[in-house]
Amino acid sequence: MEGLWLFSVALSAAGAIGFICIILVLRWVLYFRKGLAWDGGAAEFNWHPVLIVTGFIFLQGIAIIVYRLPWTWQCSKKMMKFIHAALNLVAFIFAVISMVAVFDFHNAANIPNMYSLHSWLGLTAVILYCLQLVLGVGIYLIPATPVSWRAAFMPLHVYSGLLLFTSVIAVALMGITEKLIFALDNPKYKDSPPEAILVNALGVLLVLFGALILWIATRASWKREIFMQSNFNMNQINRIPVTYINDFQTRYHIIHPRREPLTFCTICK
Amino acid sequence: MEGLWLFSVALSAAGAIGFICIILVLRWVLYFRKGLAWDGGAAEFNWHPVLIVTGFIFLQGIAIIVYRLPWTWQCSKKMMKFIHAALNLVAFIFAVISMVAVFDFHNAANIPNMYSLHSWLGLTAVILYCLQLVLGVGIYLIPATPVSWRAAFMPLHVYSGLLLFTSVIAVALMGITEKLIFALDNPKYKDSPPEAILVNALGVLLVLFGALILWIATRASWKREIFMQSNFNMNQINRIPVTYINDFQTRYHIIHPRREPLTFCTICK
Repeated sequence: MEGLWLFSVALSAAGAIGFICIILVLRWVLYFRKGLAWDGGAAEFNWHPVLIVTGFIFLQGIAIIVYRLPWTWQCSKKMMKFIHAALNLVAFIFAVISMVAVFDFHNAANIPNMYSLHSWLGLTAVILYCLQLVLGVGIYLIPATPVSWRAAFMPLHVYSGLLLFTSVIAVALMGITEKLIFALDNPKYKDSPPEAILVNALGVLLVLFGALILWIATRASWKREIFMQSNFNMNQINRIPVTYINDFQTRYHIIHPRREPLTFCTICK
Repeated sequence: MEGLWLFSVALSAAGAIGFICIILVLRWVLYFRKGLAWDGGAAEFNWHPVLIVTGFIFLQGIAIIVYRLPWTWQCSKKMMKFIHAALNLVAFIFAVISMVAVFDFHNAANIPNMYSLHSWLGLTAVILYCLQLVLGVGIYLIPATPVSWRAAFMPLHVYSGLLLFTSVIAVALMGITEKLIFALDNPKYKDSPPEAILVNALGVLLVLFGALILWIATRASWKREIFMQSNFNMNQINRIPVTYINDFQTRYHIIHPRREPLTFCTICK
């Protein structure tokens, strides 16, 4: 069930749905709203959904699963870490610019900032994402950081990353709800005009994109496989020292790699 | 880091936050809104947030982590499955009643049904939750179902359960956003009256509750530990037949049980 073909289907679906989301958000702001500009008006606000969908959701999603892409497994782990960090950094920059656009728009129109649940959770997500980025770079890209720290921090890094990604999608859905209620008038949101249907569909597709990314990211058998090195290989697997498990408080998965002889092993770090 | 004390802290925090959420939603509808009734009016609508928070979020969260509670580990697996299913069934019933309340209110007030993204995703979540419940009972509670089916379906069951739980919280956050925008008038939502602050805080606590449940549910070392039986025990762990792994396409985790001798092992099924 978890073979390469299923991975390809899930990856293709995620890519296609993410791409459609970007098309839909552009269609929304360019066709139904006042386009894109940087003038403090509604067209500046429109950068907010565009940058959130393209950067904070799509790019972040790709950053999460970049280790899973089989054609990257020949790249060094260090290279993949840099790509993972770079994609997350771009996503973060997109998120910050998108927030500046909203604050500019609110200030120009004398609308209070930070009153809604959407704004509370959104700002919290951006701050925690920044913290995750700084900690991730400090722990996984600075060579001096002990390997034991990396292993110990990994469960929290993975959990926080997936939780933040999920939260960002939830916050986006709240933002869509807010915007449609405020912006649609004659016909209203409750009259289901074409704009409402299009943006509701965007929301549904964002959920599907998130669900696929989370599925890909959490399948153990789709993890980047690395040769067992140093004191780990399949001949020695029966002699894993218990003290090693104790020391690093980590888990070792003996998995059945897809359609390949048992010469690989996945280690959670 | 993943010891019993941390589990206790996470569990206590989840319980306390879940309890506060129930208090806040009751405070919202009883103090700021028109209380609870079943008359087709606003007081009937108020059952919607109350039943969603108490049933579809709190009870579902408890149902998810019920296997993790150490004082239940002496109970039989079958008993725990019944408790898990029963809690989910009650959560589902609460969700259905809460939806009936909304449809009644909408129909009485001539408000269209099913126009918002909140309603689209909410109804989808309830339908999929029902499907998850039916499949779960069919596969894990009917004795005739082959063990191999149970093992094969488990990754999807776990993933779907956690995704649905997360989605329900996201949909609740959208519902809170909608309700505050529609219901608050003079002062409006943007003026941040006490009701808005209270319900925003409820939204933040729902996210924290969800984050804690997901953390507890996804820690491998907090899984229900079972004695290795039949052909599995720690003396035989080095001789796990590869064919067994192939056949069931499942993963075997050799973990370090917390502060206990290595006489237990967790098996993912």
